[in-house]
Amino acid sequence: MKLLEDRIKQDGVVREGNILKVDSFINHQIDVGFIGELAKEIKRLYADEQITKILTIEASGIGIACIVAQEFGVPVVFAKKTKTVNIANDVYTTKVESFTHKNVYDIIVAKDFLHPQDRVLIIDDFLAKGSALHGLIELIRAAGATIVGAGIIIEKAYQEGGELIRSMGVRVESLARVASMDDGGITFIS
Amino acid sequence: MKLLEDRIKQDGVVREGNILKVDSFINHQIDVGFIGELAKEIKRLYADEQITKILTIEASGIGIACIVAQEFGVPVVFAKKTKTVNIANDVYTTKVESFTHKNVYDIIVAKDFLHPQDRVLIIDDFLAKGSALHGLIELIRAAGATIVGAGIIIEKAYQEGGELIRSMGVRVESLARVASMDDGGITFIS
Repeated sequence: MKLLEDRIKQDGVVREGNILKVDSFINHQIDVGFIGELAKEIKRLYADEQITKILTIEASGIGIACIVAQEFGVPVVFAKKTKTVNIANDVYTTKVESFTHKNVYDIIVAKDFLHPQDRVLIIDDFLAKGSALHGLIELIRAAGATIVGAGIIIEKAYQEGGELIRSMGVRVESLARVASMDDGGITFIS
Repeated sequence: MKLLEDRIKQDGVVREGNILKVDSFINHQIDVGFIGELAKEIKRLYADEQITKILTIEASGIGIACIVAQEFGVPVVFAKKTKTVNIANDVYTTKVESFTHKNVYDIIVAKDFLHPQDRVLIIDDFLAKGSALHGLIELIRAAGATIVGAGIIIEKAYQEGGELIRSMGVRVESLARVASMDDGGITFIS
């Protein structure tokens, strides 16, 4: 999506260790008008899919997911990160590995909010190694709901997450796919 | 706000220890259409205040803040919780006490996203003891920006946070003010 690629080139900051900071408009400050344009594109891509629920994970996915959910007219559910899961009967849970923070954490969703008849679209800001996305897929499967696909703002296409999730047969639509980042700038797969 | 009070009575669940769970429409599953109605009310209350920025705190405030920000046509900034603050020069930071989780954590906002000329509206889902709200006020003060006020979805008016913050001269508008909760139900201060 050219609008997004242009904005990343303009406002994204590349830091050591292949870190792309988009703090000024996506995940610390949020340009809600701009996210609204991205949400319209995700709606266009999944318009015919009878989505009933948007699933994301706290924290930075929540704002984007809410704006996407407005387009579809459905609720958002956000998976919660927790270090202390009481193996309760009322939640679905799985483990997610964070490569940024070098730890493993549990994510949970209350069973009340994911049902077998749900057709779920996953929304997240980044896709890199795919661990969070894989965890969300597992929660949907545990609920017996249908995984319609994922809508990702920025995919680091040089990492394995996108291929991993697509090879599972899950549709992944990324609005910007970063091919490489270096001193010379950011290049995209169009 | 009657719409919200009715929804809390209908879908809120009172748990032991004065816990009001509104997981089904505010802070686990988010009814974005409903939050849109609350956002319109917050816009009405602060319409003349030339708001330039919405400030909230991760995680459950983010979705609400984004929908409110759409009404005002301004960006959201969300303060991040962290246990390991590198005392960096590029962030404002303060401490917040969590009574739910019985710990103290640091919150940070990048200096890039709060400026002296900003007129900031704080948005959060709950106000109880006021620790998070107090922390956000301190971040705004550190930036030299103007605190226009706070828009809170649910205030537990039997706890001291609302009085504490109002006594600091900060305008606090809470869409629902819970007077008491017990087996007999929830009562509101109108």
